[in-house]
Amino acid sequence: MQKIQIGFLGFGNIGNGVYKILQKHRNEIADKEDYQINIKKILVRDINKKRPVETDRSILTDNPDDILNDPEISIVAEFMGGENPALSYLLKALNNGKSVVTANKEVIARHWEKLDQAASASGAGLYYEASVCGGIPVIKAIQESLQANRIERIMGIINGTTNYILTKMSENNENFSDALKKAQELGYAEPDPTADVEGFDAAFKLSILSTLCFHKRVHLERILREGITNITLEDISYGKELGYALKLLAIAKDNEGKVEVRVHPTFIPQNHPLSSVRSSFNAVYLKGDCVGDMMFYGRGAGDLPTGSAIVSDILTACKKEHRYMKFGEKTINAVYNDDWQTKYYIRLTVKDQPGVLGEIAGYFGKHGVSIASVIQKGYGNTTAPLIFVTHEASEKSIQQAIAEIRKNPCVISVDNLIRVEE
Amino acid sequence: MQKIQIGFLGFGNIGNGVYKILQKHRNEIADKEDYQINIKKILVRDINKKRPVETDRSILTDNPDDILNDPEISIVAEFMGGENPALSYLLKALNNGKSVVTANKEVIARHWEKLDQAASASGAGLYYEASVCGGIPVIKAIQESLQANRIERIMGIINGTTNYILTKMSENNENFSDALKKAQELGYAEPDPTADVEGFDAAFKLSILSTLCFHKRVHLERILREGITNITLEDISYGKELGYALKLLAIAKDNEGKVEVRVHPTFIPQNHPLSSVRSSFNAVYLKGDCVGDMMFYGRGAGDLPTGSAIVSDILTACKKEHRYMKFGEKTINAVYNDDWQTKYYIRLTVKDQPGVLGEIAGYFGKHGVSIASVIQKGYGNTTAPLIFVTHEASEKSIQQAIAEIRKNPCVISVDNLIRVEE
Repeated sequence: MQKIQIGFLGFGNIGNGVYKILQKHRNEIADKEDYQINIKKILVRDINKKRPVETDRSILTDNPDDILNDPEISIVAEFMGGENPALSYLLKALNNGKSVVTANKEVIARHWEKLDQAASASGAGLYYEASVCGGIPVIKAIQESLQANRIERIMGIINGTTNYILTKMSENNENFSDALKKAQELGYAEPDPTADVEGFDAAFKLSILSTLCFHKRVHLERILREGITNITLEDISYGKELGYALKLLAIAKDNEGKVEVRVHPTFIPQNHPLSSVRSSFNAVYLKGDCVGDMMFYGRGAGDLPTGSAIVSDILTACKKEHRYMKFGEKTINAVYNDDWQTKYYIRLTVKDQPGVLGEIAGYFGKHGVSIASVIQKGYGNTTAPLIFVTHEASEKSIQQAIAEIRKNPCVISVDNLIRVEE
Repeated sequence: MQKIQIGFLGFGNIGNGVYKILQKHRNEIADKEDYQINIKKILVRDINKKRPVETDRSILTDNPDDILNDPEISIVAEFMGGENPALSYLLKALNNGKSVVTANKEVIARHWEKLDQAASASGAGLYYEASVCGGIPVIKAIQESLQANRIERIMGIINGTTNYILTKMSENNENFSDALKKAQELGYAEPDPTADVEGFDAAFKLSILSTLCFHKRVHLERILREGITNITLEDISYGKELGYALKLLAIAKDNEGKVEVRVHPTFIPQNHPLSSVRSSFNAVYLKGDCVGDMMFYGRGAGDLPTGSAIVSDILTACKKEHRYMKFGEKTINAVYNDDWQTKYYIRLTVKDQPGVLGEIAGYFGKHGVSIASVIQKGYGNTTAPLIFVTHEASEKSIQQAIAEIRKNPCVISVDNLIRVEE
């Protein structure tokens, strides 16, 4: 039995989860895997702080070099999050030949090249299963089980907070701010919910997933990103009427070498497997040219689910089964398609008078957009809602049509535009 | 770039799929994985037979030793199926130090000990991702991504043929034999459908899955196995009325060290994620003590999905990242629980006369079984259907109650007993 010394950078929620798992399953892991994992040092900000998990005080340190320069420590697990100082710590660990296991989606999405390069140069491993969808082993599946496939597209519910909020809105008729408040009370959303509700978190993860799936470096800044703050109960309700469920999807497609990547609220058919992914659960749906449609479903966050992924990566790192992306050599930069084709749901408020529908339909026609369905409801007021769902159309045509529609004096407001995927 | 010589044993549907994938993605696999895979020999029964895939005639052979004794061939992929002669070929390959990649669930389920022992003795690898759920990488996920978990239970839709038939029955109101006929026309079911519709195929796979999940050898003959041939449209319809969907589930639970394993038609709540697994799709739902609920969904059969798993295993075998079960040492024999607790749906035909319901309910009460719901429908005939759903009860109590109910003169027939899982 080999004894492996590891160090933790950070000791918050995920760190506690990993600690608990390694304590609880110490014997089973040793039996099954032939490794005895020992946490030698844990980097914390304040050694004297009271913590939910009891540890031997002597393994805590506030000096990162106690871990990064310790030759006995062969694996460093990072749960600090954020760009800095995590990046510099991870680079130092890798340069010193220590394998890195991280849950840090931001540092991978932004600095993958540097980290991969440092890892391959020193022969250390870089592991990041926990950075995307917590306990769901989708990274390993893409890297080591779907190698025979050209992956054509990914659609993921990869942010649990927004899926929780949209589930509450859709099932309990709660409005956005009430649902957000509940998510915050349950600890699903941060006091400042921007990273989740504006789609930043999902964009980090999509950059990682799409880079892996397409074997092309997909850059964060090329991802279209729209959050869910403009979603209203009206949209959800009209969507239901049209047979759709609303989800914040992370979408990536590789169309004959051109990549499109976007994070935005999306209508999907109610019988789509992603439709039944409720509450804070995550799922990644993908299509490979050999394997066909496939979905991975589970807990995307939480101390133990994420901890499960971290411990799994630690065990793979023990076996030194490292994989490198080799950006620039094996993994080239993506070429992007910004004018994708999809279907669109458009909700307007218009003056309730004859001829308006025809006029507006005319703008769509002019830009080559054909209409699949219309909901027009007159309530006897002076204004009325008007909802269109288009057939497949290009993003640019839609935006041009909308710009003209906005100027029409009969149009009070363009209330929402939501993309539709099938 | 390393050149790897492989041999095929068998060249039917799956073999053709693997051949096509290795042809089509030769360059991408070489680029990404640094291996050039070459099919040196293919064992076939009749070299002169016309085949759907064009191959160089010189690589075909009808002598297995051309592969098993060729020192250049380091990996043998087997798609013959069945117990013999596959077992002897695989043992010979492993004894000769060749890694084995197989889609043969029967040979793994029945002879895993021998194969694992031969592999670990010679340092070769034994790979069988394709033996369970075709393209879904559930074997690798259990072995290499969920090591940190004590897996508590598995529920799987792991036979596409029966799921197709039950979907047709449930959605299109077709009876069993019409749905089976359609499955046969589409090639989803064999001319002799016994292995699928009687649950043998699912039992092989459940033996493999549960052995992996629980790290205990779960023997085929200890699996309760009931097929779907007794399922009627009435059962499906009453189930719907009660909020259930009907699936052929493979279920395994580890209750404090005791294992229960069963394959049988099962009612599950309509909002359970497995409920939306339609047509010939497969899915494995499992619960780990750290990771929580998780589901893997995809194509469970077909030349390219299964071929995708085979090629992935071949690539892992190239890297020599072998894993051994070490039965008897690391993996002990399971201890079984034959008297599990679950809920039951029981459909009777009774004489339509006063007092019958009370009498029958009495038998359940006598055996400690409490009733959750009853559907009693009088149509003004002399007989009437009577449906019970119980609360959790032990299998033995239910069987005892049923035996007594059967003897009551008011009971015309006990039409079905279907277990209910939530």
